[in-house]
Amino acid sequence: MIIVKGGVTKAKGFVANGVSAGIKKSGKKDLAILYSEIPAVAAAGFTANRFQASPVKVSKIHLKNRLHQAVIVNSGNANCMNGTRGDKDAFLMAGYAAAALGLKPEAVLVASTGIIGRDLPIEKIKKNTPSVVCGLSEKNGGAFSEAILTTDTVKKEFAAKLKIGSSVVTIGGTAKGVGMMYPAMQVRRHATMLCFITTDAAISKKMLANALDSAIEDSFNMISVDGDMSTNDTCIILANALAGNRKIKDEGKDYCMFVDGLKYLTRELAKKLAADGEGATKFVTIKVIGAKNVAEAKAIARQISTSNLLKCCLYGEDPNWGRIAAASGSGCVEFDPDRVDIYLGDIKVVSKGERVKTYDHGKARKLFKAKDIYIKVDLNAGHHSATAWTCDFSKEYVAINSEYST
Amino acid sequence: MIIVKGGVTKAKGFVANGVSAGIKKSGKKDLAILYSEIPAVAAAGFTANRFQASPVKVSKIHLKNRLHQAVIVNSGNANCMNGTRGDKDAFLMAGYAAAALGLKPEAVLVASTGIIGRDLPIEKIKKNTPSVVCGLSEKNGGAFSEAILTTDTVKKEFAAKLKIGSSVVTIGGTAKGVGMMYPAMQVRRHATMLCFITTDAAISKKMLANALDSAIEDSFNMISVDGDMSTNDTCIILANALAGNRKIKDEGKDYCMFVDGLKYLTRELAKKLAADGEGATKFVTIKVIGAKNVAEAKAIARQISTSNLLKCCLYGEDPNWGRIAAASGSGCVEFDPDRVDIYLGDIKVVSKGERVKTYDHGKARKLFKAKDIYIKVDLNAGHHSATAWTCDFSKEYVAINSEYST
Repeated sequence: MIIVKGGVTKAKGFVANGVSAGIKKSGKKDLAILYSEIPAVAAAGFTANRFQASPVKVSKIHLKNRLHQAVIVNSGNANCMNGTRGDKDAFLMAGYAAAALGLKPEAVLVASTGIIGRDLPIEKIKKNTPSVVCGLSEKNGGAFSEAILTTDTVKKEFAAKLKIGSSVVTIGGTAKGVGMMYPAMQVRRHATMLCFITTDAAISKKMLANALDSAIEDSFNMISVDGDMSTNDTCIILANALAGNRKIKDEGKDYCMFVDGLKYLTRELAKKLAADGEGATKFVTIKVIGAKNVAEAKAIARQISTSNLLKCCLYGEDPNWGRIAAASGSGCVEFDPDRVDIYLGDIKVVSKGERVKTYDHGKARKLFKAKDIYIKVDLNAGHHSATAWTCDFSKEYVAINSEYST
Repeated sequence: MIIVKGGVTKAKGFVANGVSAGIKKSGKKDLAILYSEIPAVAAAGFTANRFQASPVKVSKIHLKNRLHQAVIVNSGNANCMNGTRGDKDAFLMAGYAAAALGLKPEAVLVASTGIIGRDLPIEKIKKNTPSVVCGLSEKNGGAFSEAILTTDTVKKEFAAKLKIGSSVVTIGGTAKGVGMMYPAMQVRRHATMLCFITTDAAISKKMLANALDSAIEDSFNMISVDGDMSTNDTCIILANALAGNRKIKDEGKDYCMFVDGLKYLTRELAKKLAADGEGATKFVTIKVIGAKNVAEAKAIARQISTSNLLKCCLYGEDPNWGRIAAASGSGCVEFDPDRVDIYLGDIKVVSKGERVKTYDHGKARKLFKAKDIYIKVDLNAGHHSATAWTCDFSKEYVAINSEYST
């Protein structure tokens, strides 16, 4: 597999665009369309929140369609909890894109991100959809990536080429997500992080859903910015078969190659999201090893990744590792604390549940000055592991989420 | 029941004191003893964290004793994860208090609060225990309450008198807790909030434990400052029978009177803890009604009370109620979002899962300027309810937990 420059328009037959439709007060890009030149199979994961935004409801309905060809996305408004008007607006968004592209509405998927409980300015979307469509191109993949951002500081793109059989398959993606970030997406059920992935692989709809499911589990569902789960999280993948590989229909070698590539891409995008969390100054990797099973390793890694106290001391560059221990022991997973080892980078700070006597606080302090922090917890109870990614918790996070106007 | 001034020394036969032993760098009071002039029955709740501080382990062992007469507490050091030395130090603390008071060590319970992973300065405790004992008095109940504080801005005390049979029974208590606050205390199993309650009621050890259990469930276990569960949470009650009431041995009328009093006291102390959370500028009450059962009402109330995003907008005085909805729907409880009503104070903002069309954002904004905020979520699915208490999330919280030196 080789990593290449680009995002959603890197795979064959995909074009995209993003413009400013005036939904955001800032005047930044806020309306985007992704389009496959030929019909594609789609799979998607959506938020597990009981409250689901209208675009999530509409995409779930449209996903029952056999083939899809476009995704329309707005930022600056979540279109959530707006009742029947919200649902109608989400259907209308799909309809406007469909009309401009000459598609059936059900061939279009919808996503929104922004504030909850404000009517979508649907007239602005109607008015600007034709101009988004006019500008659809391979080079405007970047404009698409920009238009889906909210408080993100940078756009996130990733693309890779891999060989499946004798064909070269490309997978490209883009994602956004900064706050209200604690995804627990469920493929074919229910994620405000947004992620759009395109591939020219030939693959059945069922296998595409399976592949997305396993990729999301170990990537987006293992990141946390604030522990708040959105009503709008959405991850959509479109596969248009233009690479010409032998169609992937079962869990054979080709499927494994494809899943490996997809997992790599979603993991890299997930890491970019954690690194660009609201107010983040640090990127933090938390690895739990020696667990009895993967579910327990994941639960503890996620528990640590959502500790406000740990994240504050990361911001303050103080290696207060007691907060790692306290967080790991506060969840539902039973384990023997007297077997636990904790590492900050390569410094062992806890051995068998007890502070290492030779622990050098000055050395640990130096390590916490880095931008990338690595924390490892060994439960010494089995052979399973999991990794979670997060960022620190800064005064800027509080500022971003308190000093704004709704 | 009448509320009276005072705390742990209000009930007959209890004296207390607190001094500075030099454990805290600040030179503030950090060593305290609570003493009953006659043997008392005790019950306690401790943290559910897998990692348990040495004082928690030692108190659990000593709790097997039939009668108790004292509690020794230090602040400024959690005595947690210090291995066998930590355990030995906790036993020594109890032993020093026992020696100075002429008791068996098992008659003494122990609690600590402060940073994890530093050896307890046991020599300072040994040296200063006699002077704490010398100053034991009814009027030094306030000094006890001060000596257990960490970043608390005020001491928290509460006392009440109630009539049980023909006797007047007094219950008094004090508590501390500011960060690492998300108690889930389990009576007779495992709770750094600390709470010490005294009563002169005559009650059996078993009924005292039952009473404490039900009081903790609806008070301390319903507060959150940061969602981080401590390794040291401890709530201890001592009952010395000096009120002369007919001994409470079963769940009769007298028990109900006693539990009602105890519940009132723990709820008032819990609310004081939430209001004095680290960096708090607001006190927030979250009530969930219309639930199918109490467990679900509690789970949703707690889920909302730990939303960083909601707590940031409370700090910013912005009524971004979408964050209440998102938080309520992100837990494990299944409910129908289309039946949910949400209120900010007396303003209905969501009706049947949809924004109220007449919602007046300006009016809601004014409401959010108050120091006390009341949020209500009605699931319209049953007749059960629960209340959780929390505070807002401020830049000061981040400062307190990042700008310090370990």
